[in-house]
Amino acid sequence: MKEEKVFKDPVHKYIYVQDETIWDLINTKEFQRLRRIRQLGTSYLTFHGAEHSRFSHSLGVYEITRKIISQFERNHYEDWPKEERLLCLCAALLHDLGHGPFSHSIEKAFGTRHEDWSCRIVLGDTEVNEVLSRVSPDFPKKVAGVICKSYSEEIVVSLVSSQLDADRMDYLLRDAYFTGVNYGTFDLERILRVIRPYKGHIVVKESGMHAVEDYLMSRYQMYWQVYFHPVTRSAEILLHKVFARAKHLYDEGYTFGFMVEPILHLIQNRISLEDYLLLDESVMQTMLTFWSQEKDGMLGDMCKRFLDRKLYKYSTFDGEQEQLIQRMEKVMQEVGFDPTYYMEIDFPSNQSYDVYRAGENDDNLPILLLDHKDNLTEITQRSEIVKSISGFQMGKHHVYYPEELLERLNAEDYPDVWEMLGEQD
Amino acid sequence: MKEEKVFKDPVHKYIYVQDETIWDLINTKEFQRLRRIRQLGTSYLTFHGAEHSRFSHSLGVYEITRKIISQFERNHYEDWPKEERLLCLCAALLHDLGHGPFSHSIEKAFGTRHEDWSCRIVLGDTEVNEVLSRVSPDFPKKVAGVICKSYSEEIVVSLVSSQLDADRMDYLLRDAYFTGVNYGTFDLERILRVIRPYKGHIVVKESGMHAVEDYLMSRYQMYWQVYFHPVTRSAEILLHKVFARAKHLYDEGYTFGFMVEPILHLIQNRISLEDYLLLDESVMQTMLTFWSQEKDGMLGDMCKRFLDRKLYKYSTFDGEQEQLIQRMEKVMQEVGFDPTYYMEIDFPSNQSYDVYRAGENDDNLPILLLDHKDNLTEITQRSEIVKSISGFQMGKHHVYYPEELLERLNAEDYPDVWEMLGEQD
Amino acid sequence: MKEEKVFKDPVHKYIYVQDETIWDLINTKEFQRLRRIRQLGTSYLTFHGAEHSRFSHSLGVYEITRKIISQFERNHYEDWPKEERLLCLCAALLHDLGHGPFSHSIEKAFGTRHEDWSCRIVLGDTEVNEVLSRVSPDFPKKVAGVICKSYSEEIVVSLVSSQLDADRMDYLLRDAYFTGVNYGTFDLERILRVIRPYKGHIVVKESGMHAVEDYLMSRYQMYWQVYFHPVTRSAEILLHKVFARAKHLYDEGYTFGFMVEPILHLIQNRISLEDYLLLDESVMQTMLTFWSQEKDGMLGDMCKRFLDRKLYKYSTFDGEQEQLIQRMEKVMQEVGFDPTYYMEIDFPSNQSYDVYRAGENDDNLPILLLDHKDNLTEITQRSEIVKSISGFQMGKHHVYYPEELLERLNAEDYPDVWEMLGEQD
Amino acid sequence: MKEEKVFKDPVHKYIYVQDETIWDLINTKEFQRLRRIRQLGTSYLTFHGAEHSRFSHSLGVYEITRKIISQFERNHYEDWPKEERLLCLCAALLHDLGHGPFSHSIEKAFGTRHEDWSCRIVLGDTEVNEVLSRVSPDFPKKVAGVICKSYSEEIVVSLVSSQLDADRMDYLLRDAYFTGVNYGTFDLERILRVIRPYKGHIVVKESGMHAVEDYLMSRYQMYWQVYFHPVTRSAEILLHKVFARAKHLYDEGYTFGFMVEPILHLIQNRISLEDYLLLDESVMQTMLTFWSQEKDGMLGDMCKRFLDRKLYKYSTFDGEQEQLIQRMEKVMQEVGFDPTYYMEIDFPSNQSYDVYRAGENDDNLPILLLDHKDNLTEITQRSEIVKSISGFQMGKHHVYYPEELLERLNAEDYPDVWEMLGEQD
Repeated sequence: MKEEKVFKDPVHKYIYVQDETIWDLINTKEFQRLRRIRQLGTSYLTFHGAEHSRFSHSLGVYEITRKIISQFERNHYEDWPKEERLLCLCAALLHDLGHGPFSHSIEKAFGTRHEDWSCRIVLGDTEVNEVLSRVSPDFPKKVAGVICKSYSEEIVVSLVSSQLDADRMDYLLRDAYFTGVNYGTFDLERILRVIRPYKGHIVVKESGMHAVEDYLMSRYQMYWQVYFHPVTRSAEILLHKVFARAKHLYDEGYTFGFMVEPILHLIQNRISLEDYLLLDESVMQTMLTFWSQEKDGMLGDMCKRFLDRKLYKYSTFDGEQEQLIQRMEKVMQEVGFDPTYYMEIDFPSNQSYDVYRAGENDDNLPILLLDHKDNLTEITQRSEIVKSISGFQMGKHHVYYPEELLERLNAEDYPDVWEMLGEQD
Repeated sequence: MKEEKVFKDPVHKYIYVQDETIWDLINTKEFQRLRRIRQLGTSYLTFHGAEHSRFSHSLGVYEITRKIISQFERNHYEDWPKEERLLCLCAALLHDLGHGPFSHSIEKAFGTRHEDWSCRIVLGDTEVNEVLSRVSPDFPKKVAGVICKSYSEEIVVSLVSSQLDADRMDYLLRDAYFTGVNYGTFDLERILRVIRPYKGHIVVKESGMHAVEDYLMSRYQMYWQVYFHPVTRSAEILLHKVFARAKHLYDEGYTFGFMVEPILHLIQNRISLEDYLLLDESVMQTMLTFWSQEKDGMLGDMCKRFLDRKLYKYSTFDGEQEQLIQRMEKVMQEVGFDPTYYMEIDFPSNQSYDVYRAGENDDNLPILLLDHKDNLTEITQRSEIVKSISGFQMGKHHVYYPEELLERLNAEDYPDVWEMLGEQD
Repeated sequence: MKEEKVFKDPVHKYIYVQDETIWDLINTKEFQRLRRIRQLGTSYLTFHGAEHSRFSHSLGVYEITRKIISQFERNHYEDWPKEERLLCLCAALLHDLGHGPFSHSIEKAFGTRHEDWSCRIVLGDTEVNEVLSRVSPDFPKKVAGVICKSYSEEIVVSLVSSQLDADRMDYLLRDAYFTGVNYGTFDLERILRVIRPYKGHIVVKESGMHAVEDYLMSRYQMYWQVYFHPVTRSAEILLHKVFARAKHLYDEGYTFGFMVEPILHLIQNRISLEDYLLLDESVMQTMLTFWSQEKDGMLGDMCKRFLDRKLYKYSTFDGEQEQLIQRMEKVMQEVGFDPTYYMEIDFPSNQSYDVYRAGENDDNLPILLLDHKDNLTEITQRSEIVKSISGFQMGKHHVYYPEELLERLNAEDYPDVWEMLGEQD
Repeated sequence: MKEEKVFKDPVHKYIYVQDETIWDLINTKEFQRLRRIRQLGTSYLTFHGAEHSRFSHSLGVYEITRKIISQFERNHYEDWPKEERLLCLCAALLHDLGHGPFSHSIEKAFGTRHEDWSCRIVLGDTEVNEVLSRVSPDFPKKVAGVICKSYSEEIVVSLVSSQLDADRMDYLLRDAYFTGVNYGTFDLERILRVIRPYKGHIVVKESGMHAVEDYLMSRYQMYWQVYFHPVTRSAEILLHKVFARAKHLYDEGYTFGFMVEPILHLIQNRISLEDYLLLDESVMQTMLTFWSQEKDGMLGDMCKRFLDRKLYKYSTFDGEQEQLIQRMEKVMQEVGFDPTYYMEIDFPSNQSYDVYRAGENDDNLPILLLDHKDNLTEITQRSEIVKSISGFQMGKHHVYYPEELLERLNAEDYPDVWEMLGEQD
């Protein structure tokens, strides 16, 4: 490119584009589609600032990758394979290309996987494929390989997907910025200064351990404060149930008052690449808008709830799960709620830092510390803090149900239900 | 309310709700609809962070108004009419309630006015009206009066609409935050400290003049850097032309492959309140998605351009306007572009600070400085800076046209057009 | 006060003074003296931004206390003893009043304690005492009681000194701001929202546990990244040795080329309140400036090192401590360095969160979580993270010595010393 | 250098040192001395955060210069003389080397000029000179030439001293950060993107005009809100008068209870380079501390006022100056204040942007806009805003006097003085 181009970005100030290929990829229609898909799905119903798109996140992942590589090059690290630069940048930019609208709910309802769609878009008959092919005929395959973690060079894959990758670094900073919480703000510049390529891995200088602890704590906090927020989960559950209902109605031969082809094909489980690229959150939201007028009462009701943000209420419970479910199902039916659509038990969990276990099949590359004698140590061996948040973190069980449920349940007749769902803080 | 409630907000950190009425208004479906309408319309195509909604802005205007009033009350200013508190807060919260999707383009294409719709929603058969009526039967009318600036107490109106109102203060800060530019960041706390009620006006302590200059300069900068950005204008123009084309097709009896009722009614100029409330940016975007497959080539092409962000290119020109237009129209037709839809002359302008002119019909209440001898002076009498940006600011004329135009125009055959549209920086 | 007054503050934006007593205290000469004492002692030699004074920190502690109390009052919490408001504010403002210049080094060299001096100033013949006495004759005693933690109401003491007090909250935010690191930035507003008075304690709502974890992690990070930074320690060690040398010289009857009374009295261990109030970092630094020209070579040399920032170098070691010390002392003497002044073994440690141990004498009030059934639980019972950083944290042993030492030690003749002090990262 | 080194900086996040020469210069004792001189002199008495040193500012000017040059090199601008890189960086780092403590007051009292001292240090027998001489024997002279603006290449000089130089850019951002006001925060990255070397000048791309306007407005605001703050001026005036009094006493043969050599030589007007380098704000403050106990009542009184921040009060006046002065002098003497030391008339002024005037002797290189036809235009020809703040800006006249003056002046006997000094906001 004759001249470096920039995008104004609230998180990184500017995003610098220095390669024609990157510029062309950004301008493809498949990449522009990411503007119409929110990074955080239904979180905007909890944090009203969280309207940012996967487009902006993708640019951010690209920018962090560019900065990392630029630092590697400036320091002339010998273990850095210079020829992989453009591949890394393209994979970083495109790794989320296959995300659909409200991925969590859609994938759960219809069994699609965004990783697969990313590769289908990269390899299919698309503008993205055309741009990548111009680099070299096998370049699209390489990019898809990095995205699917099958590419042979671990160091390339780990820049984009590992416990300490450009993806996580951008989303923590970005999601913190747009939600307005400040848990996700770790010191990116410092992290960039302490990582380096070493014998095929990205490793962390021992003196950078506290910086990595800080980054992992940010992740831990963001999971519990933002990503697993019960109001967000409530909206996801509702969406999932809307689609489950629609599928059920279709299977029963119901005629929809409003339907568009890509959604129909999704329900019929025969969605094409072309259909998929038409799907975005506008289409989904529009479906909800017009389905709120459907003659099927339950479908209409659930769509209205989502649109008007009359989400299901939640209660925390510690007791015996089976018992609760059975009791809830019974009383819901007694007062006219179908528990299939009007109740859900949810149990969020996450592994903020997943310890690497030798011999096991684990996607997540561990974080390795490099000491001044060139020994590598997995970080939980050295940090009590990381150890304390590694492994399986358990959240609380929540039960979700319509706010009106308790109105219909007389406290005198149903004291046990009132106790179970008792006032929460 | 038993307990103050909060919303996490990136601009104000937290938004505090202390009145049941405010809480109930936020939870109406009409207010929730504002989540689905972007604050800055098509600006997200220029600044990818600018996805924030009118919902978040409306909360922000409410919060600033709340802070102003709280400061007035804390200082026991005698000229503050305490009984107007709730009215101010409600009007602040609801002032943008009538905004539709991509207001600029839609209003230009169909002649609707969001201010009118705000009042219709407040006064109509809506959840908002119901909540307001609970305060008192004439309360909805009062709120509508403040929004339409017909309410008798100037001081109430001026908190929500004046040269130094909560609306402007919030949008400057918010738009700066989400676009990532830092031109809009003036010192809100300082402004709050220097304003006070005085004989029916909101005035500024003389010692706060520099703070107000800073605020007005922020506005000036935001207009030229963000609001009038030619790429944003290009997208607005395209949208406007899409709707103009659709209207034209409808008038000619064209049968649309895809249409939904509220849009149809809009085109037919018989849109009801119920229809209007179904309109949001999702529906609009979905129209564009499916219209991109319409058999009418021009409609399809323009929709695709918008979706894929292949916007019209722009050139600046200083010369004779009429001549340019005529020449452009001619050559466009020669190479197969209908100039009605593929060309536009645009001329942005703004009045960063509009001087009050006695005797004239002017909506914009001026900024008055109060000196230590209790004299009021209009600010341009005292500040050279404000004077320099007051009155009419002229931007450059831009001509918008498809990027491919020049490809179709041989530089040797059309040297004058190449000259006119010559390379811009 | 007729009108609220403000101080512009980079951390809290503004500091609000609403009481005449607070205003008068700030204007006493004893409080103004805190402008001449840095909050972080020698840290400015590591982080050049860390020049901020104890004056600004003291205002910050006052402001956070004011905000906490204002929130308690706004929510009408019954367990909050309203009559203690002014006492809390005064104690918060004055709690660091007795700090001298470079407290760590001075206190170590001369055995003074800043807490004692705070009380002496509050109770002595001072402007501060005069202002406090105007409130009531026993008010100075009460304030001193809170500062020394002997006051009977735990809730009052704990606002100023506990594991979650206004002091710690301000210094973390302030030190992070001025050093430029971003480890110390937790969400103050959120912390304020989750604490409340409860049966004589300040407790934390259970749902605020993650916010407290975040705050404690900030402390942990600040300790390791800033407060224990080995370069800062090196400067403290040098200062301590300068004063140890001066004391030694005085005891030997040495005549100083430059001396001022307060320092002389300090060395003679007969410093009066009046002397103490003349001590500040300017006087100390001036002593160093002129002592750098003293005829005693060691004193002059050490002072020059401090002024020109030729601090002692440090090496980390893991091995047997006694052995190292003996060997180092021996070789230092061989090459002409007196190990008493030119060597130090240092071992930083901290307890980021100190668990309360029933029955033991522990100053630090624990953090208690209040659940929705009104049970109180000490936080380590609930948080793995807090548990992982509670108790004794061990840093590395460092040995400090002049950079020129190795130049004087031939690597061939002293291979073991080179090995011990081997190149560090 | 083997490896790039960094300093943590609150304004620029990190400062990157890539040249051995720069590293060595920072470690000289003359440069380390700048740690003991505040960037903003007495401003810390108005804005308590403003304790930052000239050391940190000097690093900041270096860093901005480094960024500008790095951008010029990355873009391969032909008009950039690459061989001047190190010279620019050294001059940027050292341009403030000659500043003494509280420069404004000292220079006014004793007629010294910091620019001269910068050159004397660079050219004299100093560590700085030694480091520079290692580059080449004539390198110190070149550096001094750039600092004194006598170097032949305008482009080199203008990076360090012009209307849009690294010095101003750093101090606006830094002073805003440490005072906590947010007027000084312009978009540095954007400015860096729009400047470029062109035919021996640093010019601004026309499309960057608004960014430059924003920067100039920041300067304008900082001048009126911070640099000319009357409380800061009051402290400067007091300091100036302390030194004037000391000089007067010396001239009269007074024997000081406390004196140090460098100050004595300063008063005797025979200060050597070695003396000058011993002067810092600690020494000055220490003088004030011990002079506050001098037997000369006026000297002692003024020093106490400064230390305890009992500064002179100020009143604004518009009327006839001569008359006021005469009247004030008369009544001061009547009630026992010597007007030479207890009164001052002050009149701040500044030129935020000084228009270049052809043919006149003007230090300040103007800001030139480069349009797409390669024409250069001086910015006031294009910007109404810059025009409005260019030229001479007049502040108000203030008269400074002790707060107790009015107590001694009976309002009935001196109604005119009360009127003149009447209550200010």
